Amino acid sequence: MAGDSRHPERAAVTALADGFLAGLREWLTIPSIGTDPAHHADVGRSASWLAAALRADGWPQVEVWDAGPALPAVYACWPSADPDAPTVLVYGHHDVQPVDPLELWQHPPFSPVLVGEELFGRGASDDKGQVAMHLLAVRAHLAATGQAAPSVTLKLFVEGEEESGSPHIRRLLDDHRTDLACDLVVFTDTPLHERDAPTVCTGQRGVVGAEVTFTGGSSDVHSGRAGGGVPNPVTALARLVGALHDDNGRVQLPGFYDGVLEPSEQERADWASLPFDETAWLAHNAGGAQVASGEAGWSTLERVWVRPTAEVNGIVGGYTGPGLKTIVPSRASVKLSFRLVPGQRPEVVIDQLRSFVLAHTPAGVHAEVEVRGEGVPPYAADVTHPANTALREAFEAAFDQPVRFSRTGGSGPAALLHAWLGVPVVYLGATLPDDRIHAPNERVVVPLLLKGAEAAAVLWRILPERLVR
Amino acid sequence: MAGDSRHPERAAVTALADGFLAGLREWLTIPSIGTDPAHHADVGRSASWLAAALRADGWPQVEVWDAGPALPAVYACWPSADPDAPTVLVYGHHDVQPVDPLELWQHPPFSPVLVGEELFGRGASDDKGQVAMHLLAVRAHLAATGQAAPSVTLKLFVEGEEESGSPHIRRLLDDHRTDLACDLVVFTDTPLHERDAPTVCTGQRGVVGAEVTFTGGSSDVHSGRAGGGVPNPVTALARLVGALHDDNGRVQLPGFYDGVLEPSEQERADWASLPFDETAWLAHNAGGAQVASGEAGWSTLERVWVRPTAEVNGIVGGYTGPGLKTIVPSRASVKLSFRLVPGQRPEVVIDQLRSFVLAHTPAGVHAEVEVRGEGVPPYAADVTHPANTALREAFEAAFDQPVRFSRTGGSGPAALLHAWLGVPVVYLGATLPDDRIHAPNERVVVPLLLKGAEAAAVLWRILPERLVR
Repeated sequence: MAGDSRHPERAAVTALADGFLAGLREWLTIPSIGTDPAHHADVGRSASWLAAALRADGWPQVEVWDAGPALPAVYACWPSADPDAPTVLVYGHHDVQPVDPLELWQHPPFSPVLVGEELFGRGASDDKGQVAMHLLAVRAHLAATGQAAPSVTLKLFVEGEEESGSPHIRRLLDDHRTDLACDLVVFTDTPLHERDAPTVCTGQRGVVGAEVTFTGGSSDVHSGRAGGGVPNPVTALARLVGALHDDNGRVQLPGFYDGVLEPSEQERADWASLPFDETAWLAHNAGGAQVASGEAGWSTLERVWVRPTAEVNGIVGGYTGPGLKTIVPSRASVKLSFRLVPGQRPEVVIDQLRSFVLAHTPAGVHAEVEVRGEGVPPYAADVTHPANTALREAFEAAFDQPVRFSRTGGSGPAALLHAWLGVPVVYLGATLPDDRIHAPNERVVVPLLLKGAEAAAVLWRILPERLVR
Repeated sequence: MAGDSRHPERAAVTALADGFLAGLREWLTIPSIGTDPAHHADVGRSASWLAAALRADGWPQVEVWDAGPALPAVYACWPSADPDAPTVLVYGHHDVQPVDPLELWQHPPFSPVLVGEELFGRGASDDKGQVAMHLLAVRAHLAATGQAAPSVTLKLFVEGEEESGSPHIRRLLDDHRTDLACDLVVFTDTPLHERDAPTVCTGQRGVVGAEVTFTGGSSDVHSGRAGGGVPNPVTALARLVGALHDDNGRVQLPGFYDGVLEPSEQERADWASLPFDETAWLAHNAGGAQVASGEAGWSTLERVWVRPTAEVNGIVGGYTGPGLKTIVPSRASVKLSFRLVPGQRPEVVIDQLRSFVLAHTPAGVHAEVEVRGEGVPPYAADVTHPANTALREAFEAAFDQPVRFSRTGGSGPAALLHAWLGVPVVYLGATLPDDRIHAPNERVVVPLLLKGAEAAAVLWRILPERLVR
């Protein structure tokens, strides 16, 4: 079926592929690490590169939003010739994760290298590769249809702070409400299930984080002097962390599962039928973990897609140098984050955490809970929405095989876009869960990006007749 | 009673006090930090200083044992004129603790300063001050008795590795078995109970430490990717630490309390009658802890003197930098130490720890237990031994008040000296629990050292008639 060309977008993508790849490789040389102030100028350079590429492609309106406080975002609009055509806002981001530990990269992270079908480099998958995929899709859509403008009015919103938790996105959405007005958001920052089992993502988990610090005395004290006679804040904090889960892996914050929307039996059956090689998943998606484990009663995919979690991201307290030091430490702190699922809200979970900490703070220990940002709410798309139906059809056309729905366990501002813009959000992504995003040796599988561009190009063509405004 | 001089040692100590203080201040300028290889030469200088001081005092046999692998120790012997007199070995040490954090010292740690009755400097209390006290005691003993040699044969063994856990003391004891042969060990590295309630210490806790490391995956992994689906080694380690104690503060290692010798009702009643200001203890002895707490059913003094503990000295795992990083960490480790009491043995407790770790290691987590050294066994002297009776009498003479027995929660090689030399060990010390040993602004109360010297001088005079060989 590889040579199938029932739709004209395939040949158009193929013809444009070399130029697409050259452009992406150039963009990937810009180290737009938004979380590192030393690279903020590079985030600006990255935005300028994208704006120039859009202008070169013929987008009639291209803006770099760099008035601050947000790092530069890129906005573009290409109106349809049909004033009644729906308006679609494509969301992505051009900032990238830090690259530490640098010594684990087999190629320098900002000198992209193509090895067979894989393009290696920071941002290749998350998310420059997928944003570039959309540029290719629009060119292919115009080439395939012979039109001077897209069938839908296309808007592009590519932010520069996603890897920082989108701290100023609410402000951008407020400041540019008219620019961003649309009928549908196509969110492009999620993966397929597997290369051989392409899927349309329909939801992400949310996340919220906090640091809990326990303080006992005003200084560490010799354990021969006072050990056994005073509270040990590290012990107290470990007892708190130990109490976060019961023996079935259920999170013990009071009310944590209240209102959690469980997937339907149909969804669970669909996911159970997806191919899943646990050994490969552990090796490639789970940092080489030796076993899968988690909340009783749910499969591994369900645990990471649709079940909420309480995770310790880091802990430190007392003496951590070489050898022993027999002290009762004065202080310990733990970084916690919670992945949230539809039905949960970040601010409610933080309240639950505060109650839990209060209940687990022993006498003589002072507790402090420092919340990190506002959190990211979870989002689940309506799988029966016509846009999702059209999206699946476009994917089936591009991948020449049946396409099912999936979820992803990561987080992004989909719920925010939905709430601020008041429109449905669907997910269009063509990367893989084992692309090593946020890790050394990030890569993207180039033929999948081409398939994704093909699917997007088909979508722009068929969407007007599917979306009743 | 301050001017009481029923015994001649008081006037002798007073006459020698200035010279004693000048010598000690000189010795304290030598930064003999044995735990820091950069200061090993200073440990040698400190040993040479002590040897020179002993020779100047007239000790007929003085040796620096510096053949390695132990850091230099000082040995001296001054035989009694009476060949039937008992032989007493005085144990102390001349290495000192590190001085970090330096910025918290009000005076430079190796530029001793006398403020009123307090002499500030690293080692002033632990243990150079108390070793110097013995030199003064011998001079006072000879001056008071008019003898050319002490009433007992005195031996001095001042090691250079106590703060490192005396790693080579067994070898020194083996290599110098004849030199060190004695009838009694006087162990000088413990405090009085309080300035206004001088006591004779009768026991120390032991200590043993280990580091437990849990490893999950081969690398940290993004918690959106795998969080909830794989074991989190920090969570697992926190659950282990949380399980170390029950809600009554009892240590949960299997068999931990088997064979523990509890104090007699008489001892408990004696200790309960000692003055004890918990608020002052928390502020000055317990690092500013806000409350006393610990094993149910025991007083604070009992908890730190005669009850065994499991203490977390430090913990680290995952991301500990600024802000959040949403990962499932691959690794976490905790430093644990256990204070032991008579009836417990370090190697047995380590075996119990290994079993406990095994029972608390979840599937998919690799556990490693790294033991730090051989540990220090606990020791309790026989309070009815004639040497302790004589010691208490000497203290009552020096302090002009009734003197009771006490314990201390710290550790030292008393049990080793007892086992290797086959003789009883008693404790002679005149420092205070709130001297801030192992901490910034270590000090010693000079009048107490003079009282301690007076007590030792009295002891050397009365001991021959009390000890039946």
